[in-house]
Amino acid sequence: MKTDNMEQLRHSLAHLLAAAVLELWPDTKRAIGPAIDNGFYYDFEFPQPISEEDLPKIEEKMREILKSWDKFEQTEVSTEEAKKIFSGNPYKLELIKEYAASGLTTVKSGDFVDLCRGGHIDSAKDIKPDAFKLTHMAGAYWRGSEKNKMLTRIYGAAFENKKALEEYLKIQEEAKKRDHKKLGVDLDLFTFSDLVGAGLPLWTPKGTIVRNLLDDFIWDLRQKRGYQKVEIPHITKKDLYEKSGHWDKFANELMKIETREKHLFAMKPMNCPHHTQIFARKPHSYRDMPQRYSNTTMVYRDEQTGELSGLSRVRAITQDDAHVFARHNQIKEEILKIWDIVDEFYGAFGFPLEVRLSLHDPQQKEKYLGSPKLWNDAEDTLREIAKGKKVTALEALGEAAFYGPKVDFVARDSLGRQWQVATIQLDMNMPERFDLYCINENGEQERVVMLHAATMGSTERFLSIIIEHFAGAFPVWLAPVQVIIAPISDKFSDYAKKIKQELVDAGLRVELDERQESVGKKIREAELQKIPYTLVVGEKEQTANTVAVRKRGTGDLGAIPVEKFIQNIQEESQQKKSSQ
Amino acid sequence: MKTDNMEQLRHSLAHLLAAAVLELWPDTKRAIGPAIDNGFYYDFEFPQPISEEDLPKIEEKMREILKSWDKFEQTEVSTEEAKKIFSGNPYKLELIKEYAASGLTTVKSGDFVDLCRGGHIDSAKDIKPDAFKLTHMAGAYWRGSEKNKMLTRIYGAAFENKKALEEYLKIQEEAKKRDHKKLGVDLDLFTFSDLVGAGLPLWTPKGTIVRNLLDDFIWDLRQKRGYQKVEIPHITKKDLYEKSGHWDKFANELMKIETREKHLFAMKPMNCPHHTQIFARKPHSYRDMPQRYSNTTMVYRDEQTGELSGLSRVRAITQDDAHVFARHNQIKEEILKIWDIVDEFYGAFGFPLEVRLSLHDPQQKEKYLGSPKLWNDAEDTLREIAKGKKVTALEALGEAAFYGPKVDFVARDSLGRQWQVATIQLDMNMPERFDLYCINENGEQERVVMLHAATMGSTERFLSIIIEHFAGAFPVWLAPVQVIIAPISDKFSDYAKKIKQELVDAGLRVELDERQESVGKKIREAELQKIPYTLVVGEKEQTANTVAVRKRGTGDLGAIPVEKFIQNIQEESQQKKSSQ
Repeated sequence: MKTDNMEQLRHSLAHLLAAAVLELWPDTKRAIGPAIDNGFYYDFEFPQPISEEDLPKIEEKMREILKSWDKFEQTEVSTEEAKKIFSGNPYKLELIKEYAASGLTTVKSGDFVDLCRGGHIDSAKDIKPDAFKLTHMAGAYWRGSEKNKMLTRIYGAAFENKKALEEYLKIQEEAKKRDHKKLGVDLDLFTFSDLVGAGLPLWTPKGTIVRNLLDDFIWDLRQKRGYQKVEIPHITKKDLYEKSGHWDKFANELMKIETREKHLFAMKPMNCPHHTQIFARKPHSYRDMPQRYSNTTMVYRDEQTGELSGLSRVRAITQDDAHVFARHNQIKEEILKIWDIVDEFYGAFGFPLEVRLSLHDPQQKEKYLGSPKLWNDAEDTLREIAKGKKVTALEALGEAAFYGPKVDFVARDSLGRQWQVATIQLDMNMPERFDLYCINENGEQERVVMLHAATMGSTERFLSIIIEHFAGAFPVWLAPVQVIIAPISDKFSDYAKKIKQELVDAGLRVELDERQESVGKKIREAELQKIPYTLVVGEKEQTANTVAVRKRGTGDLGAIPVEKFIQNIQEESQQKKSSQ
Repeated sequence: MKTDNMEQLRHSLAHLLAAAVLELWPDTKRAIGPAIDNGFYYDFEFPQPISEEDLPKIEEKMREILKSWDKFEQTEVSTEEAKKIFSGNPYKLELIKEYAASGLTTVKSGDFVDLCRGGHIDSAKDIKPDAFKLTHMAGAYWRGSEKNKMLTRIYGAAFENKKALEEYLKIQEEAKKRDHKKLGVDLDLFTFSDLVGAGLPLWTPKGTIVRNLLDDFIWDLRQKRGYQKVEIPHITKKDLYEKSGHWDKFANELMKIETREKHLFAMKPMNCPHHTQIFARKPHSYRDMPQRYSNTTMVYRDEQTGELSGLSRVRAITQDDAHVFARHNQIKEEILKIWDIVDEFYGAFGFPLEVRLSLHDPQQKEKYLGSPKLWNDAEDTLREIAKGKKVTALEALGEAAFYGPKVDFVARDSLGRQWQVATIQLDMNMPERFDLYCINENGEQERVVMLHAATMGSTERFLSIIIEHFAGAFPVWLAPVQVIIAPISDKFSDYAKKIKQELVDAGLRVELDERQESVGKKIREAELQKIPYTLVVGEKEQTANTVAVRKRGTGDLGAIPVEKFIQNIQEESQQKKSSQ
């Protein structure tokens, strides 16, 4: 079934849902019911509260009604007729008033009539009764405004067949178990405080280790390629953003500060304008080009509270940002370097990447900054690089930013979900606005280009993705605690401490569980904490100077000498293996 | 001469300055002239502009008048008399109006009369004509307000004798040469942008290296002592600071943000309230105490533009902050650890430290939070530690914060200047406000204490101090570029590159000067850039696989094998030697 058909199918199911609800609770007032990704929903004002326990009953009723349905018949109706049909339903009456001028239609299937513009499948016979399921309920304001009445929204999932539905539901169930908001707290990675506010995560010692390991990894990849760290304040006078254009563009999302001297400052929503000011501090010879700045720092967005969600959407976003100031003839090499960084970084997590080239639309030259030749050259460079990388890159015409083409990377996680991650952006605008140049071989000022090259993009969002991708079971190199030592009794406490010191001296992150608990309990809790290795030590191990190794998800690996364990775990860590 | 006398002497010299100016320019209107650290000043409204070239002439006139002066005679005058004496001088008339109610006095010496409350030396004969000097001029608003007229302020230095004056002037001259604002730009460590704004330094690659090396050094000292890194957003809802008390206390200096949803946020002026929220995320067993958080992050102060100065006073301040949450019986050990960190850190820069214990005043119990026993115990602990450290600590009664006693450290730099640097603060208030506790051995909630333990305090201010302390010539471990290689011609370019790679692989920070310039010029520029080592390579070195080593400030050390050089510099770096 094609995508269009799927949308029609899902829309048709929304009708069926409403029909079932009205049979079960005839006094219910229905509002609207569209198709959405993976399914559909319908909003209702129920005469009495219902709960998720009622969903199976509604579903059953839907299947019962479905048997009697066939065609969806669309009919033009006058405003008066429509008002009569939906009298007593304030939601439909509001819609009738609104759309009266453009003409109204109803759609009928079986005995059920709804105000609707169409977009259904031809026959209800195409709906497979085992390929949809009502999944959950939620409160939703009429037309999304908190000034309006709160309605009850019932969600359903629907697919072309039972198998596809089951696969989707399985992933949903797995995703729920992996929810980073829950796992993040269980694993003590971050916390939120009501006093500090929503969208402002506070990073615990364990979470900070993971953040810094990710950042160190990226820095390692960058340093090898000639990047240098810079640092900037998180605020600026309005002037910087007036020149960069952000003051107009991000007006609503900017966090603004008026000082006591009545100067207007803003918290930075991005780092590029600040970085231009570091580049512009002195003239650069062509010999010193390119300049590659790396800077992990926070940016701020005045997000609305309702839009915030765990680490996925926050108000203070950590960016592993990088900007390259390059000559035109250096673009290819620099993009290649960034691409290599992206490949190496995401490869370490086992994320297959899909690539999209966002190009300009030659039919709309006026939309873009810079000559057609500049654009064509830049885009050919991207194509060449993709070809050299042996990547089938989707080309998206007209998707370029006005200041330059982009390479977008989409990662697929262990549940098959897709996430837009890294982006390489070529920017010919900012150097123009800030008059950035180098002195070339002829002693002339030569306009440079900028490359925007964040790898994770948002550290918070990336963390939300990998917490769910790994279900919290980070690979050894990234685990905040790599090893926990569980002595079977107090008697082996000294031996356990000696081993701990050896592991710490080898640079490993180790904990010692000295509680008066059974080894069984210690092992269970270590598994819950997703610690990669548990070392059990008792009489036998102490005598033989060994450790009994338990690997997360695998179990008992037997006893080995401590040095051998250290060697193994260091190798595993160095290779950044992400499989268990 | 005692401190009080010095202040009286300096105040008396301000009179002498005014007398000289009025003899030279009789139509001048004088405003006020107090004693200040190291000297005095007087503010004037001149009938015509004068310049610093006039200062020797004024100084000469002062010495001439001085011969005729003896006693300073203080006389009570009525408001009417005073108005008559100072008629036509709006500044004095304003002061007369203001102080009329509390009684007015004039002071006369020679023929010169000034409106003055006293505080002079007994006889002008005590002023040594060779122990004062007019140093510079500056614009200054009447009463410090930019709404008022800009006056001309003449500054003088004055000491007990000629020798002390000369020492002071010599240090001033040296300090001027070492001014971090100039050196910071010459050495390309940081920059300011008019678009970003005053008080907001931008850190170049070289400056960022130095910042990070300092931070790594401190982290190294902390990690060994069980500290853990945490991370926090730079903003918070108002609620956090209402609870902490900062909202009231820092009202004027807080940078505030109103979001589009009309929530009130603030940029953090300190990190402790955020850190309490990380500690409070879960209950802590006594077994997990103390918790030691380390966090290098920026705090913000809404400083007035006129108060900003280079890195010494900025609007975005990087703090190498740390907070320890401890039980009362752990205070001593934890303070000792922090003290060790301070000792080790400042020792590496060759800063001798003086220590002051800021204690509570037992006569004013109502000023302090917590029982007298708690205070006495805490202060005895500080005394014990100081004794154990074999340090003569000055005790400053009544200088404690209301929430706990402090240990203050004062460093003396290579010019003999003193800087208040690290502080260890014991805080019994914040845990009370935020209800912070651990579960003790008896299963009860036990109130904890907090220790505030920033080492550098402000990274920016510390950098301003060490740039001037070292005159930009950072020790090897801290130099952004440790080695520069200067091939004597193109012919040895490959050899130079090979050596560079060897040094880079050894973890050194190296540059290669490949310009078509003479070795002499390359060496001179490397010295100006204060690079610790210059390696000259030519025919001889290439053949022998050596490098000719030039050490900054010392000169030629002769040729040695590359491996030997690497070994030497690594040793020097590891020892953090701060002498040249």
